[in-house]
Amino acid sequence: VTIPVAVIGASGFLGGELTRLLLGHPRFELEYLTAESFVGQPLTDAHPNLWSLRDRRFEVADPDAIAGRCAVAFVATSAPVAAALVPQLLQRGLECVIDLSPAHRLRDEVVHHKWYPDAERDPAAAAVAVYGLPEVNREMLRSCRLIASPGCFATATSLALLPVGKLDGVALSAVTVDAKSGSTGSGSHPTASGMHARRTGVMSPYAPTTHRHVPEVRQTLVDAGVTPADAPLRLGMSAYAVDAVRGLLSCAYAFVDDSIDETQVRRAVYQTFKGERFVRTVSAQRGIAPLPDPRVLVGSNTCQVGGFYDADAQRLVLVAALDNMLKGGAGQALQAANARYGWDEADGLSTEGMYP
Amino acid sequence: VTIPVAVIGASGFLGGELTRLLLGHPRFELEYLTAESFVGQPLTDAHPNLWSLRDRRFEVADPDAIAGRCAVAFVATSAPVAAALVPQLLQRGLECVIDLSPAHRLRDEVVHHKWYPDAERDPAAAAVAVYGLPEVNREMLRSCRLIASPGCFATATSLALLPVGKLDGVALSAVTVDAKSGSTGSGSHPTASGMHARRTGVMSPYAPTTHRHVPEVRQTLVDAGVTPADAPLRLGMSAYAVDAVRGLLSCAYAFVDDSIDETQVRRAVYQTFKGERFVRTVSAQRGIAPLPDPRVLVGSNTCQVGGFYDADAQRLVLVAALDNMLKGGAGQALQAANARYGWDEADGLSTEGMYP
Amino acid sequence: VTIPVAVIGASGFLGGELTRLLLGHPRFELEYLTAESFVGQPLTDAHPNLWSLRDRRFEVADPDAIAGRCAVAFVATSAPVAAALVPQLLQRGLECVIDLSPAHRLRDEVVHHKWYPDAERDPAAAAVAVYGLPEVNREMLRSCRLIASPGCFATATSLALLPVGKLDGVALSAVTVDAKSGSTGSGSHPTASGMHARRTGVMSPYAPTTHRHVPEVRQTLVDAGVTPADAPLRLGMSAYAVDAVRGLLSCAYAFVDDSIDETQVRRAVYQTFKGERFVRTVSAQRGIAPLPDPRVLVGSNTCQVGGFYDADAQRLVLVAALDNMLKGGAGQALQAANARYGWDEADGLSTEGMYP
Amino acid sequence: VTIPVAVIGASGFLGGELTRLLLGHPRFELEYLTAESFVGQPLTDAHPNLWSLRDRRFEVADPDAIAGRCAVAFVATSAPVAAALVPQLLQRGLECVIDLSPAHRLRDEVVHHKWYPDAERDPAAAAVAVYGLPEVNREMLRSCRLIASPGCFATATSLALLPVGKLDGVALSAVTVDAKSGSTGSGSHPTASGMHARRTGVMSPYAPTTHRHVPEVRQTLVDAGVTPADAPLRLGMSAYAVDAVRGLLSCAYAFVDDSIDETQVRRAVYQTFKGERFVRTVSAQRGIAPLPDPRVLVGSNTCQVGGFYDADAQRLVLVAALDNMLKGGAGQALQAANARYGWDEADGLSTEGMYP
Repeated sequence: VTIPVAVIGASGFLGGELTRLLLGHPRFELEYLTAESFVGQPLTDAHPNLWSLRDRRFEVADPDAIAGRCAVAFVATSAPVAAALVPQLLQRGLECVIDLSPAHRLRDEVVHHKWYPDAERDPAAAAVAVYGLPEVNREMLRSCRLIASPGCFATATSLALLPVGKLDGVALSAVTVDAKSGSTGSGSHPTASGMHARRTGVMSPYAPTTHRHVPEVRQTLVDAGVTPADAPLRLGMSAYAVDAVRGLLSCAYAFVDDSIDETQVRRAVYQTFKGERFVRTVSAQRGIAPLPDPRVLVGSNTCQVGGFYDADAQRLVLVAALDNMLKGGAGQALQAANARYGWDEADGLSTEGMYP
Repeated sequence: VTIPVAVIGASGFLGGELTRLLLGHPRFELEYLTAESFVGQPLTDAHPNLWSLRDRRFEVADPDAIAGRCAVAFVATSAPVAAALVPQLLQRGLECVIDLSPAHRLRDEVVHHKWYPDAERDPAAAAVAVYGLPEVNREMLRSCRLIASPGCFATATSLALLPVGKLDGVALSAVTVDAKSGSTGSGSHPTASGMHARRTGVMSPYAPTTHRHVPEVRQTLVDAGVTPADAPLRLGMSAYAVDAVRGLLSCAYAFVDDSIDETQVRRAVYQTFKGERFVRTVSAQRGIAPLPDPRVLVGSNTCQVGGFYDADAQRLVLVAALDNMLKGGAGQALQAANARYGWDEADGLSTEGMYP
Repeated sequence: VTIPVAVIGASGFLGGELTRLLLGHPRFELEYLTAESFVGQPLTDAHPNLWSLRDRRFEVADPDAIAGRCAVAFVATSAPVAAALVPQLLQRGLECVIDLSPAHRLRDEVVHHKWYPDAERDPAAAAVAVYGLPEVNREMLRSCRLIASPGCFATATSLALLPVGKLDGVALSAVTVDAKSGSTGSGSHPTASGMHARRTGVMSPYAPTTHRHVPEVRQTLVDAGVTPADAPLRLGMSAYAVDAVRGLLSCAYAFVDDSIDETQVRRAVYQTFKGERFVRTVSAQRGIAPLPDPRVLVGSNTCQVGGFYDADAQRLVLVAALDNMLKGGAGQALQAANARYGWDEADGLSTEGMYP
Repeated sequence: VTIPVAVIGASGFLGGELTRLLLGHPRFELEYLTAESFVGQPLTDAHPNLWSLRDRRFEVADPDAIAGRCAVAFVATSAPVAAALVPQLLQRGLECVIDLSPAHRLRDEVVHHKWYPDAERDPAAAAVAVYGLPEVNREMLRSCRLIASPGCFATATSLALLPVGKLDGVALSAVTVDAKSGSTGSGSHPTASGMHARRTGVMSPYAPTTHRHVPEVRQTLVDAGVTPADAPLRLGMSAYAVDAVRGLLSCAYAFVDDSIDETQVRRAVYQTFKGERFVRTVSAQRGIAPLPDPRVLVGSNTCQVGGFYDADAQRLVLVAALDNMLKGGAGQALQAANARYGWDEADGLSTEGMYP
């Protein structure tokens, strides 16, 4: 008994990755694939790697047809499209919709409208959405009807900062985040600066002072009890494009007042994530690639988190690495869907990266 | 009931990839991992991606211990080491040894010694070796005791040229092969020219006139009946290093006397490989990446083969693409082992690449 | 006394490179820069590296204005645009026009129209064009009015094959060329397959059986006396995209009947190019990067040529490497312009690459 | 009248780049090239790009011979070797020694010994050293005998932070620096983690909590009056390896108490560097690559500095980009040598990068 699923927006990078993962999932079955600009074309026109689906074609995203044929839908479109479509799918009775867009991530309507003014959403849908970070919201995901799958920067940054909750005596007041991302993070739409000749070898501060994922991280840290709701962290993020196809590294820095030692930091990271299937504490200082590096995680749903302490400057350094297409995107969405159904969270997902 | 296996030479690139694949195999169970220069160290010192094996350590390659604990051994060492070790493993009763080195690939002793003078081998072992290209030798692999797993260039070039056997009226006399390879093909040993700063962006003819895999291709083409044993093809190969981590593209060119058309060539490719799990005929001229390209095969055991015809110059162009770590290395070895046991050849292997 | 020049089509990759070179030229002075889609915008919008030109803006390509302000024009547009514009510039009295497009390269009108049907050109202009490969046409360039600057693949392939003219006793009948190119070779226009995420790590046979530069090479080989006009070489080219920003490697293969030795081949290469400023014979088998590789030529106008002989297969291997933006494009155009004026051909050009 | 110079340690990346630059310098003349492990070998064995020096060979670093033949020496060795050699060269009467190693950068002996315990140096030599950052020490460089050329991270970070001195009302107390570097920054010695297969696509925190260049930056900021000597900045640096051959981006973050606006920050950057040949204020938000990015500076001696302000978090963001081989290494050394002699600082150096 398998559950028929739809992938809405299946021609993009995340949609393609989700399709690849679902192909190997033991319980979900690909039934409906949509892509506005590819309707009628074979799936392999957009994803030449998905050869075993060479007889499948992209269809239109018709809510009635989707509801008629599927029980679950993954939505990998832009926020405005998702904001419009998700309520229609829920009204037509789908068991669960997993929204990979940012349309339903921010619970506060005011905050949502400030950051996503173009994504006019249905408050009723937003009200039932559960933020899909299993490491924080696992229990709430069980049997929920709408999963708001986290952003890639938000996932890495939230996971990097969660251990602060286990660091006794450390009160954070200001955190700066320097996040580095590969080119799949910019989507599949052709742009002048995204061309290989120009994008190769860059170290480019494309968002030096602010990023849409900041309020998402803040909301998660409050949810997890890491920072109080009434005095949230002063949180700044700067985002950089670097030369990698997949991969995201989020590096959070905070000066602390009381002296701590690195062992405490490592222990806090370890305590926070022990038992987690997809988060590894990486603090070993030996071997090839001893520190968190998305390079060794390519193809896996794992996030590596490392905690360090700069004694000279009394500075806390928390680093999280992941594959933005997996734990930062399609893999995370599938993990949350697995959690929603009470299955093994690793169904259809790999814990081991491909390296080199 | 699983079969305990050893990976000999598990610290290199191929050994690590094999270990990763075996971790996901339904019937083989990793029991013994060796690496001369890592004895006693955790596996993750060499392969930080294989986190779920973080409690495993490299051991010495002791034939008695291997035979005592394992039924099958994959040997991913240099040819001289494999030439010495394989007979010892067979004598101690292992069910099957899969040799990824070139030590047992060439059946003719004279040819072997010409190309691998440093790999003094046991003729008795060589005599029972089956060349592990399932697309040619599937039946002989069943229940064999020694599999000589093909080289990466040889696999791609042989698969590119096999369709010539289905091209009526075309008699090849001379073929030139231009083969392009990524950096994992050069092994894990640090070298000056292999450093990132020097190896990035290269197009380097590192073997412009000859390559050790040429006699291997010739032997395979004779075995497959593509070329007669008594008048073998005049076959030249030039090998190039290009900027990719994984990937190999072999391009075979031949001028033909009688005019043919491209449809015939495509049909020959299709006829040669229809029904094959891991060879795709790629001749579509549509969509993203419409032609054979190892880029779309990263992580998969698939080989793409495309056949083209240059009518202006009466020139046949046959191209094969693969991931050198998989169909060109560890994946091929596992596929052959699956075939040897009569299992699904795809057990533990992926047919879909990771792209982008 | 400097000569004021125009760069027509200055927003593309070649136009930008030409502008960069002219900035350092001792006698030419940048006066007029055009780009259809950037009119009125600062030059640095397209070329952020050309900081010292930050006060210059792109203008419209008005022939009268260009003729009024400039004595020389470099045209780096598409062939149809160049075909229309060049005669207008010549009629208005420019001393010399250097056309980097293919509009005036092929002398034979029939051949031109077969390969460039969209570039309807003025036969009178075509009749005065000199093919701008100084190593072949140096004398004819002196004081000419129109230089048809060679294509990148044609330059490398012609230079690779010229030494055949010095190989006594070798009569070529069929040559296959395998040419590998970096991403700047595809131009600056955004495309789906040119995006970094998809173009990184490729080995892609984008033109497996034919290429527009084939007739150009054929014409050059006849001009140079390497092959007779009445029995031209059977010449096939296959073109590949590989992962490099700059760089082109052309590899020409030919089976020969009479046995020769590699020393003869090296000597032929050396004899062909001795005295040439921008062609190096590379046959040393020592040190880092001992063979022709565009990687070591980045930023230089040099072409490396190497000749090899595969004794086993009686196969001649001729390889030429260059930076497609320089000796394969803007550098070549400037070298020819220098030759046209009788200046040092290296004016404004570098002979040394940047490596690593 | 040219000045004969020596390059000591000419086989490494910086030594090779310096050699390439000196080849194009109007007044310095390459006379003596040394490299311990290459004595007697042609220069092109290590630097195949420097073809016009193919007749030159590496010699031993004999102080008498160097002093006999040269007036100036550039020392591009490790710190211990430089610490021993530099005093010998000065004693033998060289006009000027430019030390690219860290042996003479830190004036305070205690600080020097803490960070470079293996570089036992002559205090007399250290006492005459001038720190070779022309943007800060231009006057002191005139006629000095020993130039301590800055480190790559120190150069970028110091230049990023200098504008703070022009920011009225901003008192910095704590700064965190996130610095990203390409692979040439790790030197030419082969290592396991530096191999292309492992180094491609990394985002690796190789020095997460501390870096040897921190005390260098602190010293420079005190020298420049940006921070008081008795209450130096709390300064933490984290260093990352990313996938680029050349390039370094230093990103400095500081939370500020009083609200400022971005215009003030931009103005401070502009005021700090106006008139500087090799520092560009980059704050334009238009065109391709509108923000500081080492990618557009490849091959140039320019450093781009950008200042930004995150109003939400009251966070100052200062970013500096450079080519680590040029403004971060060999170019900087040559610029300082030019300044020492009162020549145009740009002699032999390019202000324009090569892009793409």
